[in-house]
Amino acid sequence: MANPKKSILIIGGGAVGAIAALNLEAGGLATVTIVLRSNYNVVKEHGYHIESCDHGVLEAWRPSVVRKTVPNITEEELQPYDYVILATKNIPDISPNALDLVTPALPKNSNRTTLLLYQNGLNIEKPFVTSHPNIPVLSGISMIGSDEPSPGHIIHGEGEKLKVGAFKTSNINPAVGERRAQEFVELYGKSGKTDVTYSPDVLYDRWKKLVYNASLNPICAITGLDSGRIRLADGGVEGLVKPAMKEIVAAAKACAGVELDEGIVEWTINADPLESYLKPSMQQDLEKGNFIEFENLVGEPLREGKNAGVPMPTLEVLYQLARAIQWRVRDERGLVDIPKKSADGSETTIG
Amino acid sequence: MANPKKSILIIGGGAVGAIAALNLEAGGLATVTIVLRSNYNVVKEHGYHIESCDHGVLEAWRPSVVRKTVPNITEEELQPYDYVILATKNIPDISPNALDLVTPALPKNSNRTTLLLYQNGLNIEKPFVTSHPNIPVLSGISMIGSDEPSPGHIIHGEGEKLKVGAFKTSNINPAVGERRAQEFVELYGKSGKTDVTYSPDVLYDRWKKLVYNASLNPICAITGLDSGRIRLADGGVEGLVKPAMKEIVAAAKACAGVELDEGIVEWTINADPLESYLKPSMQQDLEKGNFIEFENLVGEPLREGKNAGVPMPTLEVLYQLARAIQWRVRDERGLVDIPKKSADGSETTIG
Repeated sequence: MANPKKSILIIGGGAVGAIAALNLEAGGLATVTIVLRSNYNVVKEHGYHIESCDHGVLEAWRPSVVRKTVPNITEEELQPYDYVILATKNIPDISPNALDLVTPALPKNSNRTTLLLYQNGLNIEKPFVTSHPNIPVLSGISMIGSDEPSPGHIIHGEGEKLKVGAFKTSNINPAVGERRAQEFVELYGKSGKTDVTYSPDVLYDRWKKLVYNASLNPICAITGLDSGRIRLADGGVEGLVKPAMKEIVAAAKACAGVELDEGIVEWTINADPLESYLKPSMQQDLEKGNFIEFENLVGEPLREGKNAGVPMPTLEVLYQLARAIQWRVRDERGLVDIPKKSADGSETTIG
Repeated sequence: MANPKKSILIIGGGAVGAIAALNLEAGGLATVTIVLRSNYNVVKEHGYHIESCDHGVLEAWRPSVVRKTVPNITEEELQPYDYVILATKNIPDISPNALDLVTPALPKNSNRTTLLLYQNGLNIEKPFVTSHPNIPVLSGISMIGSDEPSPGHIIHGEGEKLKVGAFKTSNINPAVGERRAQEFVELYGKSGKTDVTYSPDVLYDRWKKLVYNASLNPICAITGLDSGRIRLADGGVEGLVKPAMKEIVAAAKACAGVELDEGIVEWTINADPLESYLKPSMQQDLEKGNFIEFENLVGEPLREGKNAGVPMPTLEVLYQLARAIQWRVRDERGLVDIPKKSADGSETTIG
C-alpha cells in the first residue's frame, strides 16, 4: 500500500495535545493514539468537546486510540510508532520522570521512531539524547491559544503557529533529523488549518521564545498583572520586563551564538495586544493553583547564561522568587512537611 | 502647678496609634488628643475596644480628646502641643501629603512643639526638616504586635519595644533634640508597661530595622510566604533573603557609616519564631487589599545605596516588583484608567 498513514503517539491530551491530535487526524496522513491522565475517563466515555477557531465545533470527538497509560511496545508487542510526541507540561522539579514516562514507547534497537518534544524551554532534549542516542529528537514550539476549562472541554481560541526542527546531537547524522522534521511538517500541515513551518535552527527559535517566556511570563505570574497591565504599571516595562529581556538576549548570544534582532525586545513586549489583557501561562497556572513551568523557562537560561559569564541579576531574582512560589503551591497542596504552628503563635507580627 | 501634664497630639489612631495613646494616658503624664479617620465614628460613639497584652481588656476606652481632623492651632487658637506624633501609615506614592496633613498642628514661630515620626523607613524626616527648620523631629521605631481587625477593635498581642531619638539636622542644636527625646521616653515609660528606650543613634536603628523591612517584608509580600515558610521554601533564604539583607548591610555602611554586627543577617532571619508563621506588614496589607509601605522601606535605601555606589541587584528587582504590585492594588481599587478590553479579547494566551 503506497503512503500508509503514519502512526503517532501523543502523550498528554490537554489543551495543546488534543488540538495536535485533531489537526493530525484531520490531515488524513496520521493515525493518532493519545495517552490521557486526568481527563481519561471523560474522553474515553464521551469524547472531547472541542470549540476550535480552526476546526469548528466537534462533539464527542476522539483520536483513533485513547489510552490511559503509555504503551510498553515491547510487552504489548506493538510496532514502533513513527512519531512519539510529548505534549505534557514540563515541570522537572515536580515530575522529574519525563524520560521514564516516554521510554516504554521508544524502541530499544531501532531508530524508526522519532521523538517530538512539544514543550517550551531550554535543554529539554538533554535527558533523551543521553539515554536514547539513536532516536532523533525534534523540537516543537507552539504558539497557540487553547484552554481546557473542564476535563475534555477544549476551547481553541487562537490559531496555532508551530515550528518544528531537529535538535542537533553528536550521535545522529543531521540529515536524518532534518528529514524527519520536514516529514512531520508535511503531516501536520496537511489539514490546511495550521501554520506549521520547518525550522533549520531550533536553538534560535527557543532562545527567541525565551525572550517572552523567561521574562514576561514569570513577571506577570509574580506581580499578578497580565501582559497588558504590566505595560501600564509603574516600572513594569522599564524596571522589570526590559532588563530581564536584555539579559536573555545577551545570554542567547553568549551561550548559543544566537543573534536576536535589535528590535526583539520591543517586538516581544508588544506581542500580545495590550487591550486583550492576556495572561501568560505561568500566571494562569498560579491562578488555578497549578505548578508553574519555571525550571526550563527561567532556570535553564539563567544557569546557561551565568556559566557563560553573562550578568543576569534580574533573572536571578525572578528565578528565586519562582522557586519560592512553587514551594508555596506544594505547601498549599499539603505536599511539604513543615513544623507545627506554635500554640501561642499570634497572628500579628513585628514587621 | 508643678509638672503639669504634657499635651500630645497623635495623628492616626489605628492599631499602633491607639496603643501609644493608651500607654501615654496610662502613665499619667500626658493628655492625648487623637485624630482618627476611618474609625472616627465608631470610636467617637463607642470608644475603643482594646485587648492588650500589657494593659488588659478595655471597653469603651477613649483618649482625652477624639477628633476627626488635624487641629489648625492658629485658627482654633489652641496652645501648641508639646508633642505631635505622626502614627499613620507612610505611603508617599499614594498619599504624598503627610507634610500638609501635619502642618496645621505645628506652630509657625516657635519650637515649643516636638514632632515625633512613629513610622518605619528612611528619609521620612526630610520634608519636615526642610519646611519646619525650627521644629525638633524625633524618630520612633516601634516593634509591636497590634492589629485592628475591625474599626476601633484593637488586638495588642505582642508587647511594644520602642526606640526614640532625635534626627540630626543642621538647624537645631543636637542637645535640644536629645532632651526632647529623653523627656518623651520618660512620659512613655511612666506606665511601666512598655519597653521604651532613648536611642542616641537614630540612623543606626533605622538601617538595622531595614535589614528586615527592606528584605523579608517585601519578599514575604511578593511570594505570599510568611516569615516562617520563607525559611523553609526552596531558595528562600539563600536565594532571596540573605542576598537582599547583605545589600542593606553594605548600603548602611556606605551611606551612613552604620556598621551592623556581622551576625545581623542571621539574627534578623531568625527574629520571628519560625513556628509562629508570622506575616510581615506588607504581606498582611496585600492580603487585605491595602497599599504597601514600600517606598520608604525599599525604595529609599535602594536609592541611597545606589547613589553611594553599592551594587543592589536584589533590592532593585524587589523594588520594581513592589511598584508593579502597588499599581495592581490601585487598579483593583479602580484608581487607574486603562484602555478598555478589546471586544475580541480571548481569555487564552500565547505564552
